[in-house]
Amino acid sequence: MDIKEYMKGLGQKARKAGREISRTESGKKNLALLKIAAAIENSHELLIAENRKDLDAGKKNVLDAASLDRLELKPSGIQAMVEGLRQVAALPDPVGEITDLSYRPSGIQVGQMRVPLGVIGIIYESRPNVTVDAAALCLKSGNACILRGGSESIHSNQAIAACISQGLQAAGLPVEAVQIVATADRAAVGELITMNQYVDVIVPRGGKSLIERISKDATIPVIKHLDGICHVYIDDTADIDKAVRIAVNAKTHRYGVCNAMETLLVAESIAAKVLPLLAEKYSEKGVELRGCLKTCSLVPNCIRATEEDWDTEYLAPILSIRIVDGIDQAMDHINQHSSGHTEAIVTEDYTLARRFLREVDSSSVMVNASTRFADGFEYGLGAEIGISTDKLHARGPVGLKGLTSLKYIVLGDGHIRQ
Amino acid sequence: MDIKEYMKGLGQKARKAGREISRTESGKKNLALLKIAAAIENSHELLIAENRKDLDAGKKNVLDAASLDRLELKPSGIQAMVEGLRQVAALPDPVGEITDLSYRPSGIQVGQMRVPLGVIGIIYESRPNVTVDAAALCLKSGNACILRGGSESIHSNQAIAACISQGLQAAGLPVEAVQIVATADRAAVGELITMNQYVDVIVPRGGKSLIERISKDATIPVIKHLDGICHVYIDDTADIDKAVRIAVNAKTHRYGVCNAMETLLVAESIAAKVLPLLAEKYSEKGVELRGCLKTCSLVPNCIRATEEDWDTEYLAPILSIRIVDGIDQAMDHINQHSSGHTEAIVTEDYTLARRFLREVDSSSVMVNASTRFADGFEYGLGAEIGISTDKLHARGPVGLKGLTSLKYIVLGDGHIRQ
Repeated sequence: MDIKEYMKGLGQKARKAGREISRTESGKKNLALLKIAAAIENSHELLIAENRKDLDAGKKNVLDAASLDRLELKPSGIQAMVEGLRQVAALPDPVGEITDLSYRPSGIQVGQMRVPLGVIGIIYESRPNVTVDAAALCLKSGNACILRGGSESIHSNQAIAACISQGLQAAGLPVEAVQIVATADRAAVGELITMNQYVDVIVPRGGKSLIERISKDATIPVIKHLDGICHVYIDDTADIDKAVRIAVNAKTHRYGVCNAMETLLVAESIAAKVLPLLAEKYSEKGVELRGCLKTCSLVPNCIRATEEDWDTEYLAPILSIRIVDGIDQAMDHINQHSSGHTEAIVTEDYTLARRFLREVDSSSVMVNASTRFADGFEYGLGAEIGISTDKLHARGPVGLKGLTSLKYIVLGDGHIRQ
Repeated sequence: MDIKEYMKGLGQKARKAGREISRTESGKKNLALLKIAAAIENSHELLIAENRKDLDAGKKNVLDAASLDRLELKPSGIQAMVEGLRQVAALPDPVGEITDLSYRPSGIQVGQMRVPLGVIGIIYESRPNVTVDAAALCLKSGNACILRGGSESIHSNQAIAACISQGLQAAGLPVEAVQIVATADRAAVGELITMNQYVDVIVPRGGKSLIERISKDATIPVIKHLDGICHVYIDDTADIDKAVRIAVNAKTHRYGVCNAMETLLVAESIAAKVLPLLAEKYSEKGVELRGCLKTCSLVPNCIRATEEDWDTEYLAPILSIRIVDGIDQAMDHINQHSSGHTEAIVTEDYTLARRFLREVDSSSVMVNASTRFADGFEYGLGAEIGISTDKLHARGPVGLKGLTSLKYIVLGDGHIRQ
């Protein structure tokens, strides 16, 4: 197979289908989503059987436990895909919305219309559920997509692809609106991320090294986040109960997620009160603590943190803790070490809350809430295709709106420029 | 001078000033803009004298007439800079605006806050007025900027830079918020567009080859447009008077601008009526016509267009004309040949107007208005830093909002994720 030609063919078909899907009315797109949901429900056994092939091959190739876990399609996972599709169908359609339409002194009316981006390329690891989630968001936002899942999930993905095609066909939409790269050849990724003529944006999902590689080589804009080095800062004006609740939840609710807290900053004058309480909770959960000198003097069993700790995303039951003078030093630390994902302050002080919200330059900034809330569902986006820590276009969880942009529309009556 | 070290120094100072300017209140930013305006007014003679040095050097180096024209600072041009500054001061400040703040089922409040991008790098040809316009927009939108103008305007730019510093100082703002690259060494541009740590976005302004080179080499996101191959389509449902008025204005109001029409598409059944009228007007203005076979049969003195003409931005008194079956063929032509800048339809038909607005994928789409309206001032943005034909982030004229993005803010009261 000539990979270059194959990918170009996918690109051309996606471009054509994208044009059609971009002007498809909402009802038809929703019908397709519901038909895909029904096809997946009806293919339950087949999906489990195909996934079994991937799992068997994965075990033979000695995939690690975490990879096998991500690869496995459980009945509850299939049900979640079906519900996800129905939820996306129920979301309002962002495409075509016109805002700020108003008359200018010249007599023309100027406004903005929300429009799809065109063709989205999505590259992800061997997580079959991403295939459905990504397809659903792209379809609803009027974009065609080309999906490249991990090669370990090839059987599962092709079974899911068949359901998607069925749904698109049943709704009278072009099946090329959602295409799955049907080769495990890695050269396909290289083509996908450089086909500027056919693809408008790339969304990589997966580990840091995958995303780094793709960002480096892509000539097409990439929506991404690399790290989630999230901070919680407990100010000395914090309510102790809230501080403990938030700091425990942000670290221990789930460890392997990008919105988990990795570094806790505590104001010096409240540290002696709050850190022992927290240390006890963390100890119960088996969280390893790595602290600055002052932290270690307050917390038994605390290991001394190195400079490297402040820049590390553990994704594990490990937490670095630093005692700071107050909000300014906390924000300096965040400016220097944060990955721009999510930061939270715990405080009862109005002015400090206001300052933190304005001055911290991350994609999500919170007051008295756990960083774990940084998520498309929790924010009411209905679903997310990923999280962006870039500054252009979309920041934070990226939902349907993040897969669209605004063009200008001008209405006149024979108006000319003077 | 070690260019790498020099540029890194500018970057570090810009990053630091950017943090300060990002949280500066509107009144102070406006005061700086007004102080800069006053400094420029007071330096009128000096600016003319410094500009004279550039002009003399330019003549010695045999710059072409158009370049000398762009380089020249006339008294009216200086007054326009002053007025531009006052206009930007009068615009509403987009920074810090909070939108869509609402309660989620979990009890947290989620909204979005408009925030500066950080540090903007602007690269432009020898047009001294761009120095002031760009600085004003960046300052008002809370961004620091690094400006690299053409080396032919170095004296003018440094005189303007002195006025800007004076204004910033008078308002108590860091002078590093606006820095001008003080070397003509082209290596400085190479550094500027790859200092990802210090610069968040690059805006190149100038000819296509400059912008192409920068886009190719930049590792930082670029806001840009390459071409302005703008189309006007006259449907057979058009009002003839409006069609003639718009087609003449779009081509002849100014020739060297990106929003001028380069190709006119005319529905077959109205061509015999409208083209002779237009040909007469164009002939009066000395516009060369290049048409398809059918066009040439209707218009005397029309040259046969080649395939290349449909993809050419003339920026000159030349127009290509093609007769099409109707709106579908017109939109196919636009899809294939447009640069995604601005397209207009002339029609009295409601359904066709609605289709054209929705289906044409350009940064500005118009009904019954001249493409010449695609401009930040005309759209009410107050000013523009450039025009984007990219699909991510900003499309069309980029004003203050285009130099900002939205971060999420979350307000809780000790809320944790369940």
